[in-house]
Amino acid sequence: MSEHRTPQIRYGGDYNPEQWPREVWEADYAAFDEAAIDTLTLNVFSWATLQPDADTYDFTQLDEIVERAVAGGRDVVLATSTGALPPWLAHAHPEVCRTDFQGRRHVYGQRHNACPSSPVYRRLSAELAGRVAERYAGTPGLVAWHVGNEYGGFDGGCWCDLCGAGFRDWLRERYGTLDRLNEAWNATFWSHTFTDFEQVVPPNMLSEHWRGPDHTAFQGITLDYRRFMSEAMLANYRDEKERIREHDATTPVTTNFMGMFRPIDYHRWAADLDVASWDNYPPGQREHARMALAHDLMRGLKDGAPFWVMEQTPTITASRDVNPVKRPGVLRLWSWQAVAHGADAVLYFQMRQSKGACEKYHGAVLDHAGRTDTRSFREVAALGAELRDLGDAVLGARTPARVAVLFDWDSWWAAEMTDGFNRHARYVDTVLGYYRALWNAGAQLDVVPVTADLTGYDVVVAPMLHLLRGDVVARLEEVAARGGTVLSSFWAGRVDEDSNAYLMDAPGPLGPLFGIRVEETDSAEPGVVHPVHLTGPDGDLTAGAGLVFEVLVPEGAEVVGTYGAEFYAGTPAVTRHTFGDGEAWYVATGLDDAGLAHVVRRVLDRHGLVGPYADADDVELAVRATDGRRFAFVLNHATEVREVAAHASGTDLLSGRRVEAGETLRLEPTDVVVLQED
Amino acid sequence: MSEHRTPQIRYGGDYNPEQWPREVWEADYAAFDEAAIDTLTLNVFSWATLQPDADTYDFTQLDEIVERAVAGGRDVVLATSTGALPPWLAHAHPEVCRTDFQGRRHVYGQRHNACPSSPVYRRLSAELAGRVAERYAGTPGLVAWHVGNEYGGFDGGCWCDLCGAGFRDWLRERYGTLDRLNEAWNATFWSHTFTDFEQVVPPNMLSEHWRGPDHTAFQGITLDYRRFMSEAMLANYRDEKERIREHDATTPVTTNFMGMFRPIDYHRWAADLDVASWDNYPPGQREHARMALAHDLMRGLKDGAPFWVMEQTPTITASRDVNPVKRPGVLRLWSWQAVAHGADAVLYFQMRQSKGACEKYHGAVLDHAGRTDTRSFREVAALGAELRDLGDAVLGARTPARVAVLFDWDSWWAAEMTDGFNRHARYVDTVLGYYRALWNAGAQLDVVPVTADLTGYDVVVAPMLHLLRGDVVARLEEVAARGGTVLSSFWAGRVDEDSNAYLMDAPGPLGPLFGIRVEETDSAEPGVVHPVHLTGPDGDLTAGAGLVFEVLVPEGAEVVGTYGAEFYAGTPAVTRHTFGDGEAWYVATGLDDAGLAHVVRRVLDRHGLVGPYADADDVELAVRATDGRRFAFVLNHATEVREVAAHASGTDLLSGRRVEAGETLRLEPTDVVVLQED
Amino acid sequence: MSEHRTPQIRYGGDYNPEQWPREVWEADYAAFDEAAIDTLTLNVFSWATLQPDADTYDFTQLDEIVERAVAGGRDVVLATSTGALPPWLAHAHPEVCRTDFQGRRHVYGQRHNACPSSPVYRRLSAELAGRVAERYAGTPGLVAWHVGNEYGGFDGGCWCDLCGAGFRDWLRERYGTLDRLNEAWNATFWSHTFTDFEQVVPPNMLSEHWRGPDHTAFQGITLDYRRFMSEAMLANYRDEKERIREHDATTPVTTNFMGMFRPIDYHRWAADLDVASWDNYPPGQREHARMALAHDLMRGLKDGAPFWVMEQTPTITASRDVNPVKRPGVLRLWSWQAVAHGADAVLYFQMRQSKGACEKYHGAVLDHAGRTDTRSFREVAALGAELRDLGDAVLGARTPARVAVLFDWDSWWAAEMTDGFNRHARYVDTVLGYYRALWNAGAQLDVVPVTADLTGYDVVVAPMLHLLRGDVVARLEEVAARGGTVLSSFWAGRVDEDSNAYLMDAPGPLGPLFGIRVEETDSAEPGVVHPVHLTGPDGDLTAGAGLVFEVLVPEGAEVVGTYGAEFYAGTPAVTRHTFGDGEAWYVATGLDDAGLAHVVRRVLDRHGLVGPYADADDVELAVRATDGRRFAFVLNHATEVREVAAHASGTDLLSGRRVEAGETLRLEPTDVVVLQED
Repeated sequence: MSEHRTPQIRYGGDYNPEQWPREVWEADYAAFDEAAIDTLTLNVFSWATLQPDADTYDFTQLDEIVERAVAGGRDVVLATSTGALPPWLAHAHPEVCRTDFQGRRHVYGQRHNACPSSPVYRRLSAELAGRVAERYAGTPGLVAWHVGNEYGGFDGGCWCDLCGAGFRDWLRERYGTLDRLNEAWNATFWSHTFTDFEQVVPPNMLSEHWRGPDHTAFQGITLDYRRFMSEAMLANYRDEKERIREHDATTPVTTNFMGMFRPIDYHRWAADLDVASWDNYPPGQREHARMALAHDLMRGLKDGAPFWVMEQTPTITASRDVNPVKRPGVLRLWSWQAVAHGADAVLYFQMRQSKGACEKYHGAVLDHAGRTDTRSFREVAALGAELRDLGDAVLGARTPARVAVLFDWDSWWAAEMTDGFNRHARYVDTVLGYYRALWNAGAQLDVVPVTADLTGYDVVVAPMLHLLRGDVVARLEEVAARGGTVLSSFWAGRVDEDSNAYLMDAPGPLGPLFGIRVEETDSAEPGVVHPVHLTGPDGDLTAGAGLVFEVLVPEGAEVVGTYGAEFYAGTPAVTRHTFGDGEAWYVATGLDDAGLAHVVRRVLDRHGLVGPYADADDVELAVRATDGRRFAFVLNHATEVREVAAHASGTDLLSGRRVEAGETLRLEPTDVVVLQED
Repeated sequence: MSEHRTPQIRYGGDYNPEQWPREVWEADYAAFDEAAIDTLTLNVFSWATLQPDADTYDFTQLDEIVERAVAGGRDVVLATSTGALPPWLAHAHPEVCRTDFQGRRHVYGQRHNACPSSPVYRRLSAELAGRVAERYAGTPGLVAWHVGNEYGGFDGGCWCDLCGAGFRDWLRERYGTLDRLNEAWNATFWSHTFTDFEQVVPPNMLSEHWRGPDHTAFQGITLDYRRFMSEAMLANYRDEKERIREHDATTPVTTNFMGMFRPIDYHRWAADLDVASWDNYPPGQREHARMALAHDLMRGLKDGAPFWVMEQTPTITASRDVNPVKRPGVLRLWSWQAVAHGADAVLYFQMRQSKGACEKYHGAVLDHAGRTDTRSFREVAALGAELRDLGDAVLGARTPARVAVLFDWDSWWAAEMTDGFNRHARYVDTVLGYYRALWNAGAQLDVVPVTADLTGYDVVVAPMLHLLRGDVVARLEEVAARGGTVLSSFWAGRVDEDSNAYLMDAPGPLGPLFGIRVEETDSAEPGVVHPVHLTGPDGDLTAGAGLVFEVLVPEGAEVVGTYGAEFYAGTPAVTRHTFGDGEAWYVATGLDDAGLAHVVRRVLDRHGLVGPYADADDVELAVRATDGRRFAFVLNHATEVREVAAHASGTDLLSGRRVEAGETLRLEPTDVVVLQED
Repeated sequence: MSEHRTPQIRYGGDYNPEQWPREVWEADYAAFDEAAIDTLTLNVFSWATLQPDADTYDFTQLDEIVERAVAGGRDVVLATSTGALPPWLAHAHPEVCRTDFQGRRHVYGQRHNACPSSPVYRRLSAELAGRVAERYAGTPGLVAWHVGNEYGGFDGGCWCDLCGAGFRDWLRERYGTLDRLNEAWNATFWSHTFTDFEQVVPPNMLSEHWRGPDHTAFQGITLDYRRFMSEAMLANYRDEKERIREHDATTPVTTNFMGMFRPIDYHRWAADLDVASWDNYPPGQREHARMALAHDLMRGLKDGAPFWVMEQTPTITASRDVNPVKRPGVLRLWSWQAVAHGADAVLYFQMRQSKGACEKYHGAVLDHAGRTDTRSFREVAALGAELRDLGDAVLGARTPARVAVLFDWDSWWAAEMTDGFNRHARYVDTVLGYYRALWNAGAQLDVVPVTADLTGYDVVVAPMLHLLRGDVVARLEEVAARGGTVLSSFWAGRVDEDSNAYLMDAPGPLGPLFGIRVEETDSAEPGVVHPVHLTGPDGDLTAGAGLVFEVLVPEGAEVVGTYGAEFYAGTPAVTRHTFGDGEAWYVATGLDDAGLAHVVRRVLDRHGLVGPYADADDVELAVRATDGRRFAFVLNHATEVREVAAHASGTDLLSGRRVEAGETLRLEPTDVVVLQED
């Protein structure tokens, strides 16, 4: 990115002027100036215009759009336009259309509508990317290539015969022999022993599934199909990137991710992106911890390098049943939260509202009337001015985290398709529970894959680490052995990389680290809460627990929490095991927020990692540091005023005000301070 | 209808004696005499009997049925029997069977099972209608032809390739050029630019939709398909009517509608019906306002001419999860309500219960045992006697309404497939809210299309007038300009006829009339209620509001209600704009019943249109007038006794009792008075 | 069974050692010894291994498994392995895969995946069964053949064209002529008159159904398809049994049923099973009455002969959303309950947990680690010891019931697909309500088909006997005529064998027996409760009633309960009719448990059939008797201690303790006493 380093956090977003008469453009650009917009993303959905038939490419309109966009010195992100098929292509080659999880070949419609295995689609999408790159490589102000759009966004993939063939090739590659395949899938169960790779079909509602994607007769088949499909779409991305690189060796290439998005294993994609970017559309209005987790996950894709928020809405989304507007100040607060967690770009979908179709009421910088005198535009413009005034202060700065949370798509996939325990215990809910407790405690966090280097962390938290692969067990043991702390939860260490159960006590190979074994796994309906008695140096606590209750037998671990109900009352619910110079904690049940806060505080206290504002509800401290400079972002997510004692002296880069350590910082709701520490 | 004028409100219903041995018929007719039945609808579902194979038509049985029916001087309505395919036809021509919204071609079953675009179906249904007409035209007592049955009743249409081809023809006709088509659908969004009409496919779950019929990527495509499908079924109706007219130039032709039925735009069908008729099956037991709305909507189809209730049940329906019986007196009350709103026929489905299949427990005049000593039969017979005794008193009389409610299928369709605001705000719920307030206030109402002549109305209420077309804006302005009052609500004036957003402030072209602009549209989950403070000459009121909260900027309008919560507290929620000699009111939020009552009373008061029984809950006054005679129907829908002061002097045609204006009318629950005013 | 009589209740279960390396086997067998396991079920799902391609059969592995299993003197049940297709077969012959209720042909996956009408499947499944039988007939210790597995377990059948052809053949056989077919289905309704058998298609979501299996336009068609499909699967079973009998004339043949399982009419299958067996997986943790009903239903299949529990789980099931573990003592309690109700075998699924796929967490005797020091294994072993110590004491003993409950698949099917009353009133819920009242009262019960000999019963209870067939009316009348009591409920006697309504008052031909007629059938939403006033010699009771409220006219019956609400307040809700020397009771509404208890106690009191522990909540007394010996099983299902006065003197076969009649028996929660009465 260095050669594209800009003097500020990028600000702007998706702009689709092809939907407007040319005379509107100038008014748009005047408004962009007013809002200090410096970056526009162009050409996201124009395949049908760029290539109106099999033999014709026409860049007339795009030339004009790009020319105008960069004319005023703005930067542009140029998309390849392959996120939606053109009608003529679907009509000429019906097999380019995806087949859904119900096994139905779709006809033309929507977006994200291509079969990733279709040779025609692969050839033509790569060709289009190549032609776009050929034409626009070297354009002044071109700062990134944007391939496709929100991969996997509709239903998570394709289940057609072409994908079936691709899957079989992938399996031949992965397993080599049928014996190994049959072993990996435990195929003797229900007489599924395959005697020819050709017998394998995609797992969907016409084959191994019932009820839906999480209910499969063979977890191994479905898990492998998820891996295959994630890689099949990655191959689509690579097709295009490769063609771009034929014409442009250096400009970063990316695609917009979607945070905790189950269909695609972003960790396996990350190496192919030059910069991580994602679209931030939280499902509710009080999701600050969830957004923080997603930002950290995205930042973790590229080892902590700054990422981009490629899309967010200035006002409302359009896709939910109920779409409330962002309250005053919230757009600013959430934008700064993104920056605080490592974003070097804060972009919108979109710059001007569409006239028609399903996103015509999706929020935009400019509404249908093109007004600049609305609350929404005023907030957009004010934020633009702040970002412009901040300049390059925080660009490239990184989060100094000593706590890592492991996030693992394989465990997510495997855990949520598991029969036998409790379908209501969900992976992201569980991870978010632990993340929220850490975030509330003010720890600076990284969210990393199970393959990450863990040597830099004092604390590693691995909630519901269901599936174990590679050397993760050894690396977790090393964390504890050298004095760190490892924390995990129920359902950890249950299955191997094939999602087969370990032929040993749970938590499988993690047993020695945690010093316990799981003898039984009880479950209860949502809403059933049992007490758990937790002890601690700062007092005891009776917390609540639900959904899952593992009955533990300590094998070296100390009991720090016990069940208070059911036939296992008095037996351990939370344990701590001394391992080398460190500790390994295990939480055997679905602890509530109070219980998790208690456990997490004890873990963080051991390493002095509780943050200065941990007792101020919903006041977030997120730090970025670079070259000896530290930027402390203090964000008030509460709906009330908060007063805290400043943790350090420095200058608030937004107000220019001087802050002394210990003085009272009064934070109005949605207030933001960016303290450059002395 | 004049040449078929009968001396009384028609009374009878669907009769299917072909399901019974001949010997039962005479018992049936004896019971019909006992119940004063004068009209029977015959031949609704007999295609397989009339035409047992491609080459054979056999009217033997129908001859006998018709002959017996008219033998006693009864009138008959003769159906064409095309509402359900015969098995042999589906077997010989699978393409006559409809393809559902999931894209699945059905095989034989059910009813309403034909593809409306199938040439074979069109040819054979028209042929059958022609042959029936040829044979029975001129039959003494034949008072109407009944084409098909409840068009669109199963899932609302067909999505097969034949319909796809028909849709493309319809589009060629509508748009002429692809450029115009692409503009209407805003096709550049998501790269949907069509380069050949042949690329267009029906919008369903295999193309533009997800979740269901209301979730489409392209509102324009789906809206046009709804229009096309409504017209495709109308073409089926016309096919048959045309053939009937070859043999009978004058007898009215109709088909039974279903009130607020979304799949078919009855306004666009109305011109092709000689008399409007509909089937009244309210979804609950306390639906008097909803039924009143539906009656008025049906009456509005033919400019206020009397309509027919073609079906209602004497006791229970059969199709709902829970089917309670009509309480004592309710059948009579609801039947008179129909008459009060303009019905000149009150017919049942059905005269005798089926022996088998899915409607065998649907209520009927005669039960399986053929009893005439049941509560149900006694109530049927008593009502028959009353109708007979009333004679021709009210026939042809019309509702003297000075208030019109606009009802618009295009707005219904467009609003309910809109992404971006609140999926829980529904068109009919909203219209019904306003209608109920008007009905409670005792206003005499018409429910009319947006194309209706509005010059006769003092007040025009247009709830959620989402889509604007034709000259509706000018005509609404004219209402206000000449001193009338216009009332509309949130989401008005958002889209044009293509369902594209106006490139101006909401409410679009309605802005000058209402003197406001909408700057933001906030939404909340069902159950969230915010206060709205309403002012008025008779006192202020704090009402509740939910679902949608538009933030308004007055541009000439006066504020008569303000929000009491959220960041827009204190800003206008209800406005009144002086426009010419009149007023235009705008309600920006989902006001509750109390709030709507307050607003509506203010509007009606201005024109002196609040009815005399407005303060007696659930006492309805509905008036019909003709040739200087006025009939005031006073109906007690409450479950308690109501005492009201008679609004006029006259004679109760049911009891024969003299009533003096001002005297106390004591109304038992379900009581009905038909006061012929002096 | 006599030649296979064993000295004890069989104990063991499904064992699939083919999923394990050979070295694990010996550890397994050591554990089996420890738990006193005497019976193993082998070869349930091994088709792909036994027949790896069309031309090859390979019994090497099975030889080894069988050899080892019987080596220690254990008995084996040998399955035919036809419950799941091998991949190669589905690949080679796609038509062997079932087509679901949505009309979608499935590809390979799951189990229970064969089309029962497929000639290839029928040929190859029979061939495999024959080869297995040929090879293993005469194996020492072989005590039963187990055909297929849980027939109908996935979605209840197949709706493909092959099944369509089979259905048409079945209809030709059943009806002979189209006239009779059309009459049976009341085909003139909605013009369904068939003019050729070839026009008939399977009723599913592409033909007669909407919403799902219970919503059909033609009950007659759907009812017949249910009968056909149940018989088509029976033909599969017979295919295999026939081939087994070619090699083994005497060893009992069975298949595992599933209790109250709607898709298959087990009564029509029963004659083809030599011993009834079933899989007991109750849906909740407090289902003792439901399990008792299911045991009795299964015992009733073979005229009261002992049955087998073929499967139950030692700990958790795997298929539900939430799978709690069986609490301590519950496995023992439920196992003894099975024996108390006539089980001569108590077997598990399964002996060792699978390593992978959807049942890997389903409970097993041995967990993944193979531990024998867990609570679960200890309970399994302790129960094994008890069963071994009991020896042959109760083998072959039968329940001395004087009360019969009628259970009828035809009524179940017909009632639950009925439109017009209340979809929430369900057959099994209704039967279970009456059964629970009888069970609470301590009556010894048989659950029998409507074709059963009723001469031995004092009381016959026939809840919701919706469909009448054969001479059931005459036999019920005979029960009452000779002094017995008959009890039935709402919706009785509504339809004939074709599910057509009787052309008479409800309850149809049952009217003379009950001395009432039903004039109206009212319904209410779930949760609506109306009072019913019940009288009785021991005091009156106001009970609650819901869902269905029939309005009765007594025609000879005495009123013993009246409605307390609605327009039918004061009219009969419960009646008693003297018929011959006996009585016939009719309950016209959905009485709550208190109301049913009141009614049932009065009925039982008349015959002195209330049990000795009727007042001790959840204490069950179940008796088996043979050759003059009586075994009284006393089971405490309560979660508290219960103290009761012993009803007889004898010896507790479990503890060896002597019990005197009248002494206080203290029963801890889950306690079991097996009292051999003096």
